Amino acid sequence: MKRPTILVLGAGYGGLTTIVNLQKLINTHEAEIILVNKNDYHYETTWLHEVGAGTISPDKARYPISKVINDNVTFVIANVENIDVNKKKVETSAGEFTYDYLVIGLGFEGETFGIPGLKEHALSLTNINTARQVREHIEYQFASWILDEVKDDSKLTIVVGGAGFTGIEFLGELGNRIPELCREFDIPQEKVRLLCVEAAPTVLPGFDPELVDYAQEQLRKKGVEFSIGTPIVEATAEGVKIKKDEGNTEFIKAGTVVWAAGVRGNALIESSGIESNRARIAVHEDMRAPGFDDVFIVGDCAFLLNEETGRPYPPTAQIAMQQGVIIAKNIKHIMNDEPTEGFVYDDKGAVCSLGQEDAIGTAFGRKFTGKPASALKKVVDDRALYLVGGVGLTLKKGKFKFI
Amino acid sequence: MKRPTILVLGAGYGGLTTIVNLQKLINTHEAEIILVNKNDYHYETTWLHEVGAGTISPDKARYPISKVINDNVTFVIANVENIDVNKKKVETSAGEFTYDYLVIGLGFEGETFGIPGLKEHALSLTNINTARQVREHIEYQFASWILDEVKDDSKLTIVVGGAGFTGIEFLGELGNRIPELCREFDIPQEKVRLLCVEAAPTVLPGFDPELVDYAQEQLRKKGVEFSIGTPIVEATAEGVKIKKDEGNTEFIKAGTVVWAAGVRGNALIESSGIESNRARIAVHEDMRAPGFDDVFIVGDCAFLLNEETGRPYPPTAQIAMQQGVIIAKNIKHIMNDEPTEGFVYDDKGAVCSLGQEDAIGTAFGRKFTGKPASALKKVVDDRALYLVGGVGLTLKKGKFKFI
Repeated sequence: MKRPTILVLGAGYGGLTTIVNLQKLINTHEAEIILVNKNDYHYETTWLHEVGAGTISPDKARYPISKVINDNVTFVIANVENIDVNKKKVETSAGEFTYDYLVIGLGFEGETFGIPGLKEHALSLTNINTARQVREHIEYQFASWILDEVKDDSKLTIVVGGAGFTGIEFLGELGNRIPELCREFDIPQEKVRLLCVEAAPTVLPGFDPELVDYAQEQLRKKGVEFSIGTPIVEATAEGVKIKKDEGNTEFIKAGTVVWAAGVRGNALIESSGIESNRARIAVHEDMRAPGFDDVFIVGDCAFLLNEETGRPYPPTAQIAMQQGVIIAKNIKHIMNDEPTEGFVYDDKGAVCSLGQEDAIGTAFGRKFTGKPASALKKVVDDRALYLVGGVGLTLKKGKFKFI
Repeated sequence: MKRPTILVLGAGYGGLTTIVNLQKLINTHEAEIILVNKNDYHYETTWLHEVGAGTISPDKARYPISKVINDNVTFVIANVENIDVNKKKVETSAGEFTYDYLVIGLGFEGETFGIPGLKEHALSLTNINTARQVREHIEYQFASWILDEVKDDSKLTIVVGGAGFTGIEFLGELGNRIPELCREFDIPQEKVRLLCVEAAPTVLPGFDPELVDYAQEQLRKKGVEFSIGTPIVEATAEGVKIKKDEGNTEFIKAGTVVWAAGVRGNALIESSGIESNRARIAVHEDMRAPGFDDVFIVGDCAFLLNEETGRPYPPTAQIAMQQGVIIAKNIKHIMNDEPTEGFVYDDKGAVCSLGQEDAIGTAFGRKFTGKPASALKKVVDDRALYLVGGVGLTLKKGKFKFI
């Protein structure tokens, strides 16, 4: 009898957690496990704001996938090019794959909502490559300014579109990095402008209002200006146009524009044969795609309602990893002809960093700010490392200093 | 009786050595010593190839001038805007100065020999600002390449114009840095091209031919291609055009062009009222300008024939510093109505770095290559620190590891 093939696409938080749990649960003689990922590394999406600001090196935010998989898993470095669940075929740059069980964990893409010029002119913190580009772009602007005979200070303006998690965490890091950069590049700090532009009426929607106030106040102290309830309506090579009260617009000239608002599922979902909305698939409780009992969706491409709140689970690392655990178990259940388990969210809390030594968060039914919240954030970051890679990886790449 | 004023322009190797020797020789009640420099720091011109390649940080290659001057010296941070030796007036961005003794140590400028496009499109290793720009430019090219949908590998080509000291030392550093950069930026190393273009028929003119052969061979092993005897005739935003045999030209597309050939004196010399050639002044043996007994020229703006070889002394840090010592002594001599001393070159040898752990050099009448030469280079670099700033500065900023 031929072993079944379990094909996992993507080594983000969801895909990689699925893999490390599968390799614990399933032996080589029971199934063939294949992981396809475009890079030989996993990167910490939740640390990209630090890479973009330049407060940690890109290498700190990634590790080789080979460090966390064992011989049970065949690892293929390839781009996924097409998924066809009706034909049970996945085309990749390394050839075609078929499967008995498919796990799709291809992550998110930026969503620019059709705003003209944003795709062409705004940078993003989507992956290691784009985050590294943000860092190098800012540094190059700073390095060039001092050499310009006629100085245009807007070269030193950084506009961040979006006051969600990514935008706020990025601004928090910039708040620490800008004084350093100014010293390194001999720039008077008052010439640098940090601006957060958000279309929605509030910062960090969903967070406790008291914590949000704290966050905004702390970022203001670091020099961040907020323009809230003012959507970006156009981006050009020179900056962004924002819509203010009563339909007036204002053009903000800026050397750097980073778009940190709006995510959607991976576009490959839309041609896979499974129904989706903004490339996200409304999955069953056991994380299977509707109509395709052999296909699991994990992480940002999965849409699942939280019955308690009546709202969908947000696309976070914590949730993707919990889903990965369930998917691995459910594949094992199905192979054993057992009933599958439903995903139950274990809320470990949420922490939003505001730069070094500062953060806001909720955990254990309490609110945290400042250093305690920042320590909590490091623990959360390290927990992700620990769950995938164990103690060794946590000690090597972790942020919490075990004094 | 009014104290005489000694005005020193520039805190490069020559100017700063003059200052630290003046403050040892002359007391506050004997003379007022004023130093004018555009930055609050001194930088190591001979280390700029490392800053440009990114193998050391810009901060490593500079130190605050306040660390090496004492209360005898009034330090003014200002741009020198005009020198008029007939009226004994120096205009600066911080006002006008007059003097009883003037020391001009304003350093070199790049000389592009009227080659079209070079000024606009080529980067240079002239000072901290331009060297930092070279580094950030290369890193930004590397960071962008991986994100380009259609990849143009010439973005990863670096053309260095000039196979003199600066060009060769820069290429040596790049030879070490490129493999690191490729790893950091996920670029296959074979896509990167390092090209040295030189108009003259040889590399490192004036160096021992055996050592030059060694240098070229070592750089070739690091991936450097040489195009010698082939002048750059034009530079554009896309790359450089070089002239080959029999008047044929070839266009080399390159993301980065660094011009490291040709230096001249500071342009302010040309309107100072003293006769000059390419902004260099043919000084008397005691380093005074012809016709102006109260004006001394130090370093790259001074032109002095080496009687032994019949050739002018090259514009090196070693020579500038030795001149600074003599100038300080001669000002003291004149104040004491004593005869001045002539500059006598004490040849400490010459070392050209080929990157980490490799170099070529001559010293103590011997030739050195490889690690011994590289150690010698570090000693030379530290000697400059020691002569200006003593043991403290050498330990803080020095390169030689005292194990």
